[in-house]
Amino acid sequence: MRVRNKPWADDLIAENPEAIVLDAAAHRGHWQDRFKQQQPLQVEIGTGKGQFLIGMAKAHPEINFVGIELQKSVLAAALKTSLPEALDNLQWVLADGDGVETFFEPGEVDQLYLNFSDPWPKTRHEKRRLTYKTFLASYQAVLRDNGKIQFKTDNRHLFEYSLMSMTAFGLQLTEVSLDLHADIAASDGKLENIETEYEQKFSAKGQPIYRLVVEMPDKAK
Amino acid sequence: MRVRNKPWADDLIAENPEAIVLDAAAHRGHWQDRFKQQQPLQVEIGTGKGQFLIGMAKAHPEINFVGIELQKSVLAAALKTSLPEALDNLQWVLADGDGVETFFEPGEVDQLYLNFSDPWPKTRHEKRRLTYKTFLASYQAVLRDNGKIQFKTDNRHLFEYSLMSMTAFGLQLTEVSLDLHADIAASDGKLENIETEYEQKFSAKGQPIYRLVVEMPDKAK
Repeated sequence: MRVRNKPWADDLIAENPEAIVLDAAAHRGHWQDRFKQQQPLQVEIGTGKGQFLIGMAKAHPEINFVGIELQKSVLAAALKTSLPEALDNLQWVLADGDGVETFFEPGEVDQLYLNFSDPWPKTRHEKRRLTYKTFLASYQAVLRDNGKIQFKTDNRHLFEYSLMSMTAFGLQLTEVSLDLHADIAASDGKLENIETEYEQKFSAKGQPIYRLVVEMPDKAK
Repeated sequence: MRVRNKPWADDLIAENPEAIVLDAAAHRGHWQDRFKQQQPLQVEIGTGKGQFLIGMAKAHPEINFVGIELQKSVLAAALKTSLPEALDNLQWVLADGDGVETFFEPGEVDQLYLNFSDPWPKTRHEKRRLTYKTFLASYQAVLRDNGKIQFKTDNRHLFEYSLMSMTAFGLQLTEVSLDLHADIAASDGKLENIETEYEQKFSAKGQPIYRLVVEMPDKAK
């Protein structure tokens, strides 16, 4: 899809080099230098307009967050929303998520988030799904031992596919909910869930939201 | 639960020794002798009133089926239904499913079915769930290499638990549906599904039916 050029996006990005990174690979192994505090690093691939990661950054000042998004005007909207919040534990990255291995060193990332990724429903597009094995290999390359991937979607077939793809890859399924919002309602506030834009929209229609967490195998074992 | 004694059940069972087995362990390694044809053996644990296995036996004359059920009056109802069908590829077993290792030799079983098993929702009863690791070990002990377990339930939490328990055990998730009846409707008759009594009841209420298939690891690998 060709996205219309938005001059305000270019300007906003150019004016805020402290909040947004255009040359992700140049920071490989040194991401902590971009933050005020040295603390665990969590990354969202396909961060969209940033609602999820801004919410996470506000709720978790003890964690550093990086949000990666390919579409400039979409990421500029995230930047526009985050700037007034002055969050020193949040960085945006304008880049294609399939380059994650070139952006981070092995073990540099503590946790990854995939939220409402494109389902690519046709079998011939399987390789484009963010839970296809080549993507999983790139996540494994940057996550620390026992690092986690959290995946949320409203798309049943993508979730079914991901359950099979991730466990076949050897990732350990440590949490799974086939109706996240029912579980949250039943948890008396014990279960944290920061909603994405899509999640709010789909959940309001009464569709179940699916969520899983997988853990990297411990290489020492 | 104490089940009321039903004299007709005792009589029916005593009168049909060719269709129902009371001493399962005595047939270990020799189950094929109970059938007209030597062909693959599939076993349902907790067969209830037998609707699923009778349907399977009619649809698949090329497979031998064994249905195990602990409650005498329930299994007698299955026997009562199956007798007029004169199915020479179906045997009933009155026994506790947790003895499966003593009933079958290693590799004697090609496929196992668990349908709408008791969810045992309390954490302290986890060990009683038919997808708890000790049960999985007993299934592994009797299934051939690449043998399969098919599991269906309407209970979301039991299904979530089973996904984690089965993959943690090292079983390979080869099929998963989070809305089996929607998938069947969309398959234009290509997807076979023999319904159980419970399945018909719950599905009629509009509740999704969950289904998974896991495969034993190939020991030769």
